[in-house]
Amino acid sequence: MKRAVYLDYAAATPLDQRVKKAMEPYYSEKFYNPSALYLAARSARHDLDNWRAKVASLLGAKPAEIVFTSGATEANNLAIQGVMRQFPECQVLVSAIEHESVLEPAKLFHHKEIPVDDKGRIMLDLLSNLITDKTVLVSIMMVSNELGTLQPLREISSMISEVRKRRLKSGNSLPLYLHSDGAQATNYFDLHVSRLGVDLLTINGGKIYGPKQSGVLYVKAGVKLQPQILGGGQEFGRRSGTESIAQVAGFAKALELAQLKRQQETNRVKELWQFFATELQKQFSGILFNGSDKHLSPHILSVTLAGVDNERLVMELDEVGIEVGTGSACSAASEEPSHVLKAIGLNSEQARSTLRFSFGKDTTKTDLSFVAAALAKLASHQ
Amino acid sequence: MKRAVYLDYAAATPLDQRVKKAMEPYYSEKFYNPSALYLAARSARHDLDNWRAKVASLLGAKPAEIVFTSGATEANNLAIQGVMRQFPECQVLVSAIEHESVLEPAKLFHHKEIPVDDKGRIMLDLLSNLITDKTVLVSIMMVSNELGTLQPLREISSMISEVRKRRLKSGNSLPLYLHSDGAQATNYFDLHVSRLGVDLLTINGGKIYGPKQSGVLYVKAGVKLQPQILGGGQEFGRRSGTESIAQVAGFAKALELAQLKRQQETNRVKELWQFFATELQKQFSGILFNGSDKHLSPHILSVTLAGVDNERLVMELDEVGIEVGTGSACSAASEEPSHVLKAIGLNSEQARSTLRFSFGKDTTKTDLSFVAAALAKLASHQ
Repeated sequence: MKRAVYLDYAAATPLDQRVKKAMEPYYSEKFYNPSALYLAARSARHDLDNWRAKVASLLGAKPAEIVFTSGATEANNLAIQGVMRQFPECQVLVSAIEHESVLEPAKLFHHKEIPVDDKGRIMLDLLSNLITDKTVLVSIMMVSNELGTLQPLREISSMISEVRKRRLKSGNSLPLYLHSDGAQATNYFDLHVSRLGVDLLTINGGKIYGPKQSGVLYVKAGVKLQPQILGGGQEFGRRSGTESIAQVAGFAKALELAQLKRQQETNRVKELWQFFATELQKQFSGILFNGSDKHLSPHILSVTLAGVDNERLVMELDEVGIEVGTGSACSAASEEPSHVLKAIGLNSEQARSTLRFSFGKDTTKTDLSFVAAALAKLASHQ
Repeated sequence: MKRAVYLDYAAATPLDQRVKKAMEPYYSEKFYNPSALYLAARSARHDLDNWRAKVASLLGAKPAEIVFTSGATEANNLAIQGVMRQFPECQVLVSAIEHESVLEPAKLFHHKEIPVDDKGRIMLDLLSNLITDKTVLVSIMMVSNELGTLQPLREISSMISEVRKRRLKSGNSLPLYLHSDGAQATNYFDLHVSRLGVDLLTINGGKIYGPKQSGVLYVKAGVKLQPQILGGGQEFGRRSGTESIAQVAGFAKALELAQLKRQQETNRVKELWQFFATELQKQFSGILFNGSDKHLSPHILSVTLAGVDNERLVMELDEVGIEVGTGSACSAASEEPSHVLKAIGLNSEQARSTLRFSFGKDTTKTDLSFVAAALAKLASHQ
């Protein structure tokens, strides 16, 4: 049987065979608890340190700034809850289009949502106005998982630096941290933390051909963070639990592969994006492209096809061998229209006519021609 | 090279090949996000449901009572913090010999430690006296990871039932839950939750020849639990994050294998325990056996060898091919003597002369004869 055309890489990626190979030794050969004292265990500890150093070097960070977690959701929770639980009287600002794993923990605290423009971009002036003397954390994702829109993270970081300077002068000793969820950015963008200007950065192994339930929170030295999972004191006391070096090795290898090929992949996928957008434009007169066509990660293309029922269309596409999402897979089961599409001004009806195509390593132009044609045929019958 | 004699199964177990086989399909073949709508993703969801149902049935629980976590440490945190955050004015009781992943989260709340006798057993009367009108959670591990001592969980559960009844009569509407960390019990004991009488039960994949960073928290229907990791609402809203079906399948398969062979293994390992204890008694006149020899899990044998430096001995044993721990691997790096040994009345010097041997699938009598002889030789030189 011919493998289906998979266009939901933003929801999940298959494990790279090289990643699998990196994980293998830690299952039954080097299975030791890295906290034990004998040589074999210390050798496992040594491997763990090496994988951590690799991740750190890919991010331009120090090894002690890398906290391995069970995925991006845990990393986002650790960032938000880990900072805010120490400052329960203070405030966190999150963009209106964040993933639920940022929005939901933010709701536990004093929080405000930062609105976005109709392309899904943060407006710096608006953000600047929202920052009060009690804001200690700002969380803005690098790339929107539903729109592909890229945020002006460096500009945001510069602005936040200015606020910090003003605070210092005025004697306000509260910290002001910038967190970014980089889950959708890792295959295509530079994640050098000092160039990005972030204090906290989330990365997701499951979106970069690494193992699911693997992730990292980068925590800049000096950031005050209260651990969420307490116990044996692993991960520098920031996240306890006997380490799975298999998951860590898989994550590190996947990150390495992603960052090594990111420029080449960006160019290749940009072409696919252009090609597919042009094809769709030809087929659908009333098509609406969501998100920015200037500031974007080219692996995500969100379109609204007026009058179409997106869930029905997903099923019909599936029948002809095309796998695609309506938006975030996490909320696929939910009856509520996407909060992201709402934030950029779409009404419920438009949101229910929206599909998200996301591209990856195996996506080709031939696939996309096939999909565009199938889509035209199916949509005309709806 | 001859494989070393590994006697630290309580710290880590190698992955069973059958477990590995159960995990394989979910890496690159069935890698889909189980929340997506197309058939392949729904088939992944179906597999996830099946693995959950298998775990539930092994525990005598309902599938909706099973929460997959990234290991026992997270499960213990979810139990303690998940209950206590809803009742911040109330109290949690934990045994004095709990693992750090129970003790540390308990310290975030009003808590008291339940003392144990010199064998490491909970004294029911003392526990009963500690329960106040504001106690909402009692956490007592099934088997001590340092001593092997087995707790009278059913008696504890009956006593707690009586307290619940009295509360009902007196109009106290606070819940009173019993949590148990079953991490060290799973290979040898029945984990049927209603027979145990627990409301919350932690199981650890990494100690049962399953993948590290896999675990389960059983949460009895009706137990009020606040999630720690928020987001897409996976695991019935109790633990968000895109599921790793590989980790789940590995856990479920490992649990199945452990529970299928537990009686046979218990008998086999009991013999090993007896044999090794007898050998050691022959060699060391001043030997002290820690823990109960009546109520125990036979895979753990803790001994104090007067005058011996345990860390040095661990290194020397390692040199002759014997891998063993001083106690909990998690605290191996710590300079503090074990809180568990202290709780049963050992002084610091005795604690520093204590070794923990733990047996597993591949442990044989021949191994243990060799270890007893090596130990006698090395200890005489110390």
